Parts: sequence; C-alpha cells; structure tokens
Amino acid sequence: MTPPANETSHRVALPVLERFCQDVLSATGADDASAETATRAMLHASRLGVDSHGVRLLNHYVTAMAGGRVNPRPQLAFHDGGGAVATLDADDAHGARATYAAMARAVDRASTQGIGAVGIRNSSHFGPAGAYAMAAADAGMIGVTVCNSDSFVRLHDGASRFHGTNPIACAVPLAEQRPWLLDMASSAIPYNRVQLYRSLGQELPAETCSDAHGEDTRDPDQAEMLAPLGGAFGFKGAGLAGMIEVLSAVVTGMNLSFEIAPMGGPDFSTPRGLGAFVLALRPDAFVDRATFDAGMRRYLNALRASPARSSARVMAPGDREWAEADRRDTAGVPLDPVTAEAFQTLAQRFGLSSPVPVEG
Amino acid sequence: MTPPANETSHRVALPVLERFCQDVLSATGADDASAETATRAMLHASRLGVDSHGVRLLNHYVTAMAGGRVNPRPQLAFHDGGGAVATLDADDAHGARATYAAMARAVDRASTQGIGAVGIRNSSHFGPAGAYAMAAADAGMIGVTVCNSDSFVRLHDGASRFHGTNPIACAVPLAEQRPWLLDMASSAIPYNRVQLYRSLGQELPAETCSDAHGEDTRDPDQAEMLAPLGGAFGFKGAGLAGMIEVLSAVVTGMNLSFEIAPMGGPDFSTPRGLGAFVLALRPDAFVDRATFDAGMRRYLNALRASPARSSARVMAPGDREWAEADRRDTAGVPLDPVTAEAFQTLAQRFGLSSPVPVEG
Repeated sequence: MTPPANETSHRVALPVLERFCQDVLSATGADDASAETATRAMLHASRLGVDSHGVRLLNHYVTAMAGGRVNPRPQLAFHDGGGAVATLDADDAHGARATYAAMARAVDRASTQGIGAVGIRNSSHFGPAGAYAMAAADAGMIGVTVCNSDSFVRLHDGASRFHGTNPIACAVPLAEQRPWLLDMASSAIPYNRVQLYRSLGQELPAETCSDAHGEDTRDPDQAEMLAPLGGAFGFKGAGLAGMIEVLSAVVTGMNLSFEIAPMGGPDFSTPRGLGAFVLALRPDAFVDRATFDAGMRRYLNALRASPARSSARVMAPGDREWAEADRRDTAGVPLDPVTAEAFQTLAQRFGLSSPVPVEG
Repeated sequence: MTPPANETSHRVALPVLERFCQDVLSATGADDASAETATRAMLHASRLGVDSHGVRLLNHYVTAMAGGRVNPRPQLAFHDGGGAVATLDADDAHGARATYAAMARAVDRASTQGIGAVGIRNSSHFGPAGAYAMAAADAGMIGVTVCNSDSFVRLHDGASRFHGTNPIACAVPLAEQRPWLLDMASSAIPYNRVQLYRSLGQELPAETCSDAHGEDTRDPDQAEMLAPLGGAFGFKGAGLAGMIEVLSAVVTGMNLSFEIAPMGGPDFSTPRGLGAFVLALRPDAFVDRATFDAGMRRYLNALRASPARSSARVMAPGDREWAEADRRDTAGVPLDPVTAEAFQTLAQRFGLSSPVPVEG
C-alpha cells in the first residue's frame, strides 16, 4: 500500500510535521483536543505510508474549519443506549475528535461488557479509519471502525456514483508485535489514492475506476466513479459498502452517501452530517489471553511462511505499513509537491515557519 | 447468485424436503433440536436459491453424524464473559444447532445491552451463514455471522491454500419488506459453488480459482485453491478473511483454517474443532426506530432506482434471493442429479419414502 514514490519530494521529520499541523489547526481556531486529535490521525497515516490520508489533508481541514463546515470547538455529547452501546453527538467536530472519543467510550464499555459500540452523529471527515481501530488495539482490544462518505463508487452493474468509498478498519492487538492492522476501502481503490495519482501524474491500476459513462479508465483525470471491490464479483464489494453504510449512516440517522455534500466543496460552510460507527471487543472476555495470544502468533507465523507466487511475498495486513513506519521514523515523511506548496502558503498565512526538510 | 439451472432436474416442494431432512437426521440419531436446526439452515439456503449450502448437504451431514465427527445429541454450555458477550461450548454439535443457539443468546444480550456477541467453540460445518444473521433480523435486530473453514483460499500473492472461504453474513431488518441480506464468502467464489459446477459439468467464472501451481483455471476439476476476493486487489479479500479468522478461531481458541481437517474426509470420526462468531445489534439502542426504518427505506429506494449498465440491473443484497424464494415456494426446489440419487439411497437406508417431485 506504499503510494507511488516521488523522487523529487523532500522529507520532513515526524515531530516537525506534528508540531506544524497542531500549530496550523490552533491558528485556524481549533481547540486543543481538536488540533491534537486531527494531527494524531494525520500523523498515523503519514507515518505508516498511507499518504492519501496523511498530512496532505491539513490544508483541506483548515478550509473546512475556517469555512464553518467543521466546528473547531465542539461540545461532544454521549447518549447511552444500553449497557454496551452509546451514540455520540459530535456537534460537527473534526472526524478525528469525534472518532477517538467514540472509540475511547467503546473501549470503556468493552472493559466491563466484553464488547462496546458507539454510533457517531454529526461528525466530519475522519481520515484514516485505521487510526481509531489502533486506539482500541493500544488498549488491548480488537477495534473496528467504519464510515460512509460522499458518493464515488458505482454499484455492481451500476452506472453512476452511489456509495462512498466506505472504509472498514480492524486492528488486533498482538503480544510481542505491533498490531495486525487492516484498513481498506470497500471500493477497488480509495478516492484519495486517485487524487494522489492525479497529483503525481501516474496511471491508475486496471479495473479500479470508471469514466462518466461507467466504462473502465486508467486516466486519473477521467475517473468519474470508482468500482466496488471484487471486479466481476463486485456485488460483494457493493454489499460490504452497504453493510458499512447501514452502520455508519442508518443506525446513526445521518446522511446516506448520496446525500453528503462533496468533500471538495464548493460549499465549505455547511456541516456535512456524517456518521460513523466504532466497535471494541475485549478478547479475554471470550478466551484466556494466553490462548488468544498464542493463536495470533500461530496464525501470523504460518501466514508469513506461506508459499508465495514467483517474485512476490505474502504479508499480513499492517506488515508493509509498520516497516514503512520504521523507515519514516528515521528518514522522515516525503511530501508531494502540492502538499509542500500548500504548507508554505499555510505557514505564510498564519505567520509560522514552514516545516524544515530533513538533511539528505 | 442463482446457481446454474439444471433443466433435467426434478423439483421437490419445500415442506416435503423439510420433512425428509428431519426424518433422515432423526433416523441418523440426531436429537430433535439438532434435526430441526440443521434442516432449518438447509431449507433457508434451498429456499433462497443458494443450492450449494442447501439440502445437497444432507448426505454429508448424515455421514458426519454417523461417523462421530458431529455429535448428534450435544449438551450446549454457555459461559458469560461480560454483560454483552458469551462463549458457547457446543460439544461438537451440528453447526446449525450451535449457531442458532448462539445467535439467540446474542439477541437476548442485545435486547438489554444494545449489542451482543457470542463466540462458538467446538462447533461444526454450519452451512449458510445468512441463516443465522436472518434469525437476528427476525427479532428486529441487525445480525452478523462469520466462521472460518478448512484451507482452500490462497493469500494475496500466495501460492498455496491458507484461509478457508471464511464467509460473512449480515441481515438488516426492514419495516415493510423482507430483510436486506448479504451472505458472501471472502473468497472470489465459495468452494461449495465449485463443487456444484463440478457436479453440473460447467466452466468456472474467470479469476476465481487456481490450479495446484497457483495459476488461474476455469476447469472445476483442476481447481486446487480459490482466489481471495478482489482480483489484483486480493489483499483486501485476504484481509477480510483474516479478520473473520481472528473472530471465528482466535477469539474462540479454535482451529485455524489450515489446522481444520478437510470437510470431505476421509476422517469422519474426529470432531473438527470449528469456531464461529455471531453478533446482534439493536438499532433502536442507537436511534429511534422510525428514523432507522426511514433510513433503510430511503437507502433501498435510491439503490433500486440507481442507473444500471446496459442490459444489467442493480439489486440490493437479498433481492435476487427473495425473488427466488417466492418462485420456489410455488414451484419447489430443483434437485441436482447427484443430490436426487443420494436422497434415494438415504431413503432406502432408513426405510423412508423418497421425496416425491412436484407435478410438472
């Protein structure tokens, strides 16, 4: 899942990026919790190599907060719905502010009930779904996060945008390793990835996008909709997207994908009415921890030793991302030219220093 | 998802099939609950047109019960793990006996906690995952069911069997219609479907199966492993299979896919140590029921009106299956020749009447 490398980009150290993002968001008017959580989510993605959901989004978030779409100083309110579940009204908070809070509540519920789930109302774009699943794994639990988003994905046999890219993320804590971490769109490709290919001028992978007539295209500038996961078996990807839509938008009473205003504007003043859904599950409520840990170890050892096709390598979800995190902890995060330029503009606008590149 | 029609097959009325399956299982030694639930699950599939998981399996279940792999008179034991979760030790029961009981407990927990989940230990092949998700929907809740199974699916870039077909099913109750119902393998095709194509002598869909060397094949007799869902993006299907594996086998302390004895024998005397996992979620613990119902109605109306590719039609998960159920309620269930012959043999063995075909 490493995005196409850009040889000409410069790299910035993670702590420098973290400080810059927080300062920019604070200067935009965000309260501390919002600035910190939005930054934490972006850094999660930038560190793990998921650049489409990383600091590239900072400029977008500034626009959304400054315009009024996202409330920079929200009052979050939980409503219990039973011993193990709650609904969070996020007061149009940044999606990271809302979703970290929701997952913390789900983890709290799971600590006594064995499982906990929170439906989120009146949220906004939350970036990398895996960031919030990871928050559960950091607490020793299995975390699951889903959300819907504005329509970009056709149905199976469909010829127009219907579902959002509707991601699902799942993180599983491991005893002696960093978590097993799946973070995937139910589309054949995430839309942010298409934007990244567009920004880099690279050709799209086959069978991932359709043009305005629903026909396959590999030109990112012609991409008008995404295909559901599964190619000829796209009814499965569309079905998964539907399950995610139900949990994120129907169970929360929020906008369906096709009712959500486009992420890219032009309206940046109206809250988008996004829902999301998080779940935490405590493994030792089902089985003793030693058995669980041994099972994960057995599973991953066998997976990593499983025969591969020629010149390929089998990996567990997260393996590539954690390896990239190790590299970036040392070498910094590469910034694409569009993002680097946006950072310079933001620095000027708020009287801040532009992030200094790593020596290289 | 309607399987290939067999013009020469005869059709049998659903109540006749139901009686025959129960009588055969009872004659094999199954207690009433086991005979009833195994029949209920098979009839769910046969009625909805998912013939790979329908009454075709009766002969297999008789072999498994008679051989000792499946306990025909199990003592089920629940162990609470928190207010909202439990583990069920199924005593090597038929998978339907175990999973219907587990879902009933999950629904009970969700009625007070908002959500309920049950991990199942020492179960066996449960047939159609959707049958148990439906049991939650019948109680007005969203139901989710997953299980793993013996290795048949390669990893992304893998060259040997690793995961089972690891299905996920989800049913969502609707106010004035039959439930939204997704029931899918995380493989590109379910293995039972491959067996059905083999039995009917038909060619496999493209990019669904690999031969012993991991290369694609469309010859069902050459299919040695299945591809994960997603084609070139098979890491998503493999990741979903992994999430399902963790919930079904690791959270329950049961066998991983590659540790499970083959469904088809030759050993039919040793219990296979299968796990499974079910979850029920009560929508009105999150949002008032009228809002939930209106959301589902709005979603499905828009979906069914969404533009389709030429000579195609968009459908919601379950639409095709419920339409087939209507046909089969009247016209009966078509039996493939292998199953029809097996029924004759079973009838002779137990001194029962063979199911009488529908007049036509």
